[in-house]
Amino acid sequence: MKALLFDTKLHLEDIPIPVPATGEALVRVSTAGICNTDIEICRGYMNYSGILGHEFVGVVEEASNSYMVGKRVVGEINCVCEQCRYCKMEMPNHCQNRSVLGILNRPGVFAEYVTLPEKNLHIVPDALNDEMAVFTEPLAAAFRITEQVSLASDDRIFVLGDGKLGQLISQTLWLYSKNIICLGKHQWKLDMLSSLGIDTAIQNSELAGNADIVVDATGSSNGLHQALSLVRPEGTVLLKTTCVNPLNIDSKSTVINEVRILGSRCGPFRPALEALALGTVETRPLVTESYPLVDAIHAMSRAEAPGVMKVLLHI
Amino acid sequence: MKALLFDTKLHLEDIPIPVPATGEALVRVSTAGICNTDIEICRGYMNYSGILGHEFVGVVEEASNSYMVGKRVVGEINCVCEQCRYCKMEMPNHCQNRSVLGILNRPGVFAEYVTLPEKNLHIVPDALNDEMAVFTEPLAAAFRITEQVSLASDDRIFVLGDGKLGQLISQTLWLYSKNIICLGKHQWKLDMLSSLGIDTAIQNSELAGNADIVVDATGSSNGLHQALSLVRPEGTVLLKTTCVNPLNIDSKSTVINEVRILGSRCGPFRPALEALALGTVETRPLVTESYPLVDAIHAMSRAEAPGVMKVLLHI
Repeated sequence: MKALLFDTKLHLEDIPIPVPATGEALVRVSTAGICNTDIEICRGYMNYSGILGHEFVGVVEEASNSYMVGKRVVGEINCVCEQCRYCKMEMPNHCQNRSVLGILNRPGVFAEYVTLPEKNLHIVPDALNDEMAVFTEPLAAAFRITEQVSLASDDRIFVLGDGKLGQLISQTLWLYSKNIICLGKHQWKLDMLSSLGIDTAIQNSELAGNADIVVDATGSSNGLHQALSLVRPEGTVLLKTTCVNPLNIDSKSTVINEVRILGSRCGPFRPALEALALGTVETRPLVTESYPLVDAIHAMSRAEAPGVMKVLLHI
Repeated sequence: MKALLFDTKLHLEDIPIPVPATGEALVRVSTAGICNTDIEICRGYMNYSGILGHEFVGVVEEASNSYMVGKRVVGEINCVCEQCRYCKMEMPNHCQNRSVLGILNRPGVFAEYVTLPEKNLHIVPDALNDEMAVFTEPLAAAFRITEQVSLASDDRIFVLGDGKLGQLISQTLWLYSKNIICLGKHQWKLDMLSSLGIDTAIQNSELAGNADIVVDATGSSNGLHQALSLVRPEGTVLLKTTCVNPLNIDSKSTVINEVRILGSRCGPFRPALEALALGTVETRPLVTESYPLVDAIHAMSRAEAPGVMKVLLHI
């Protein structure tokens, strides 16, 4: 099968179709999404080498549960042991022995086939086409916030960052509180949210701080610092940004204001699939370009280009 | 009256006895404690100028509530408006219009007299002498952690820092979980905790991480980074350190491990007074030197000297 691999650089290669281990299904990938994490991996993040990619939709070709064969699925990316301390604490995404699809010790989805534990798979509702369902994983990361923070309908929320994740987070949290503003650097990106009725502002606007909740989805080492300047005492900053450079925080304002900073990573697939299927989150405008797998190297470079949001691979 | 003031440097001066405003009591200070915050203020922290000091015990000389006159008291340091958003949210320590004793817009306690709102005062139990009661304010800051985090009796806790605050925090959290280790740089300081039965380790020890809770009471810009390396996924780091230099955090581990970082400042006086009165927290070994107010400038320099823990002023 064809696959896009990264070691020190990107290669498109022909490699054997993987053989599912016990408990795993073989999935024929139909659509995959390029995430900023994939781009970061190419800069050395996670020291990962292997097949890239973790956002996908596919069709089950082999599974021990015959009901699953032929079903269109998306899949959770953390493959866990169910035995370690964190699995037993019901924190499987923090499994000490986990592999993570296309990120840590497990080949990813920029390939014709992928294997994944059957328990990781979720059947995609018929109402949802591939181009929408492929957003399940990043949308689940947005819904993670709703598991971590108790949201009230009048909570003042700022989302920093108008990129793909910032947009999904803004739409998700807008389901909980309409008192939300997405701050970004790109008017055309903010206009996508405005067209959904969500308030936005260009990032250097003079905004009153004192937000109850601020989400840093900037992907920039300055985002956390800005978030801390906008949150109220005893308010919460959700940190979604991972970047190579260390983040600076001002201990004085953090301690004096007793701010809560929460790292936030992967989230629940079920509410994400539901929101996509019900149309309460709109992903279609986010897809700016699509390429076949043979053009995956070009697609990766496009995913970093100005003016581009989500790039899909049709496989 | 005599008072120790700081503007660009320390001065011992004779100034008028303050006149209490409506709702305030006049307190004759008997004992005051020098806190690291006082030392930081002399380095420019908070841009404060005026009478230093916020840890005290005194006797009420004037009060609208005649029952209070003649009583020995300690006092909460945040003086609040009861009108602003945060007062109404029952977060008075974050009052937008607050003054803070010896720290922000309010003369401190390194003086013969101080005024403070009567509602800020707590009567000191007879069982408690001045040298112990003067620890109420810093011990309350340790008890603040117990308001912010739900502590289980088997929680694995690391306290980073063997200074005064680290010691008070270690003793306080040890009341909740015996599975606690204080990490410090000074064997003689750690020995003070060991003599109470609390586990300790020299800071560069090879310690397994994965603590449920890590408290950074190092006062150093490296403390938070170390705390993040020791906490388990979805664990909590309590940040007590305020320092001028920004703190660095590694976004990757914070986000991937979904760590919670909580700034932590002032705390509740009642449990602190109770613990002191019942002897469940031991402060006597922490007092290394005492001076009369006329020697306050020397006392301030001693408070920074190696081998010295708490320095008291007898006024």
